[in-house]
Amino acid sequence: MEVYLDNNATTKVDEKVTKAMEPFFSKIYGNPNSLHKFGSQTHSAINKAINQIYAGINANDSDDIIVTANATEANNSVLKSVWINDILNGDKTNIVISEVEHPSISVPASFLKAQGVDIKYAKVDENGELDYDELVKLIDDNTALVSIMWANNETGKIFPVAKIGDYCKSKNILFHTDATQAIGKVVVDVSTFHCDFLSFSAHKFHGPKGVGGLYIKKGVKFTPLLHGGEQMNSLRSGTIDVASIVGMGEAMELGTSTNAIRYENTVVKELRDKLENALLDIDDTILIGGKQNRTPNTSLISFKGVEGEGMIWDLNKQGVAASTGSACASESLEANPVMNAFGDDSELAHTGIRFSLSRFNDEAQINYAIKVVKDAVARLREISSSYAKN
Amino acid sequence: MEVYLDNNATTKVDEKVTKAMEPFFSKIYGNPNSLHKFGSQTHSAINKAINQIYAGINANDSDDIIVTANATEANNSVLKSVWINDILNGDKTNIVISEVEHPSISVPASFLKAQGVDIKYAKVDENGELDYDELVKLIDDNTALVSIMWANNETGKIFPVAKIGDYCKSKNILFHTDATQAIGKVVVDVSTFHCDFLSFSAHKFHGPKGVGGLYIKKGVKFTPLLHGGEQMNSLRSGTIDVASIVGMGEAMELGTSTNAIRYENTVVKELRDKLENALLDIDDTILIGGKQNRTPNTSLISFKGVEGEGMIWDLNKQGVAASTGSACASESLEANPVMNAFGDDSELAHTGIRFSLSRFNDEAQINYAIKVVKDAVARLREISSSYAKN
Repeated sequence: MEVYLDNNATTKVDEKVTKAMEPFFSKIYGNPNSLHKFGSQTHSAINKAINQIYAGINANDSDDIIVTANATEANNSVLKSVWINDILNGDKTNIVISEVEHPSISVPASFLKAQGVDIKYAKVDENGELDYDELVKLIDDNTALVSIMWANNETGKIFPVAKIGDYCKSKNILFHTDATQAIGKVVVDVSTFHCDFLSFSAHKFHGPKGVGGLYIKKGVKFTPLLHGGEQMNSLRSGTIDVASIVGMGEAMELGTSTNAIRYENTVVKELRDKLENALLDIDDTILIGGKQNRTPNTSLISFKGVEGEGMIWDLNKQGVAASTGSACASESLEANPVMNAFGDDSELAHTGIRFSLSRFNDEAQINYAIKVVKDAVARLREISSSYAKN
Repeated sequence: MEVYLDNNATTKVDEKVTKAMEPFFSKIYGNPNSLHKFGSQTHSAINKAINQIYAGINANDSDDIIVTANATEANNSVLKSVWINDILNGDKTNIVISEVEHPSISVPASFLKAQGVDIKYAKVDENGELDYDELVKLIDDNTALVSIMWANNETGKIFPVAKIGDYCKSKNILFHTDATQAIGKVVVDVSTFHCDFLSFSAHKFHGPKGVGGLYIKKGVKFTPLLHGGEQMNSLRSGTIDVASIVGMGEAMELGTSTNAIRYENTVVKELRDKLENALLDIDDTILIGGKQNRTPNTSLISFKGVEGEGMIWDLNKQGVAASTGSACASESLEANPVMNAFGDDSELAHTGIRFSLSRFNDEAQINYAIKVVKDAVARLREISSSYAKN
């Protein structure tokens, strides 16, 4: 049996999405900006997709949503736009992020730091919860931007973005949230809270890789990362990638409907809880961050004495896919920075296994995964030098 | 009959390419950076595609080719990397481009100009030929970068990039060429001339939209535009878009083989010449830029007294797709900047019609297009206020 439990890394493209994209390769291939019908015959599909994307986050027609290559581009766009507008050509000096942001925020932030920007890092506590009061203390009159992720990719922890957004608005400071791990898991509705920018990536909600988006609130100044042609109101240039936009639109509609969010927070959550509770029955296991304030699909578990890489290989042999941490960083075997934020037990930091489910998992898969994980933990502890057998 | 003669705007994805991409949506969907087999089962396809891309431009294994969203991203990456490294954090002050670069070069250049960079523009003559001697005079010790396109998107004119590259190398100045309109039309072989950077876009050579690439010569300093995860040697972050890379690789191999380039320069060229010669038989027509030094698929023709937009509509009604200029700029109806560079006859500047062919055109299509264009010119001149009937 094959059981894919690594949906925070990427997801299967829904077959309905693949089918919606299919005509836009070899059949309907015009450039949407062309004046002839090869161009214009793409327009209704693009309009439908754009409407699906706006509806998915309940954006106002007067706001902008630019389609990007991915959330990484969206996140870089925000940080570098603010840098150019408000720091390089303005009088602001700092940007506030959390210490557990995805590399697509933390690495451009480090780049800006090298350019002289003061980057301030908001801490998370031992449960992976963002300390709102401490965050607020970091914000001052020289803050150009606060960028806090909606949900953490490792723990699934949901951060208080509405509260942070309100605070930023009251101080007239730009607020960005990377909602990559939130879309399709919880309700993301930009009409219900304040944010100036919001990023997402289609491949995290059963859309294709290579396409994402950036919401920009009406009136917010934005300097494009990709200058060029007049696509996307000149806010993001490059030939419109029709197939990908159609795919993201379809995936957005499928993933953010009331029924889809309900399914995620009932059926998927119950499957996650079943898996998690069964694994926590094993001796010496810890649920990193606890059960509160999480996306419904994610569980980050530490198995004492079990080295993460070895565990992933053991599971892999049995067809179960999980992760030691963000796939984005897994080319290196350093301890996961998110785990490190939870304390200085470096052994523990190497042992977190992330299970992330989706609507394509079912109970038989979960039962099988429980058995496979339990066997792997037993075997690996048997050969572990660090796990003291009692 | 439908005749697509707008291949410089975008191309039909070759059905072989679409077929190669198809498994990488809903069947093989892992994140290549994941350690489990859902990730690793993408590796052989990615390796094959990367090899196809390297082979397509004959890059050395020790050089980098980063996969981008498009040539627009590649071009922005080069200009902004050089700005940050050599101007903002260095002692260079100017960048030299041609006055007929694509907006994905000219618009980021204007952005850099607003940041204080001295942008120098090399002129083209009335035939659309770049004046090499004048270009060289613009380059000085303060030049950080020279960026000259390989082939112009409007006229198809081929610029002397090998000569310019040699000159830049002799002066130790970075040289970039946007080869977007060259790949698949002429031999692009980075081993035969000097360039530090070279950009391309898959959808111009029968690959998918939403993917392109940037060649970076070994040892050349490059600051990423997309910071984040460790993909592409940390030179371009963002989840690897497997389907698109596979598609670009396949399209690159199909488009740049010796046979493909020969076909382009014999069969496609003969079709283009047939169309062009037939249309130049019409009274008061001009081939913009003349017949020398062009890509084999492109013909930019001015029909005196015929307004470009009207012509496109007339052709469109009969199923023939052509362009008044770059689709990238066609949302606005300003006179085409490339046409403007050829002189100050603003009437002429509005009348250029670009026909751009591909390997999917055949003689029956060209015969039909000749008839349609001739009829359209006759009709539009009949109702033209500016065309004096003799």
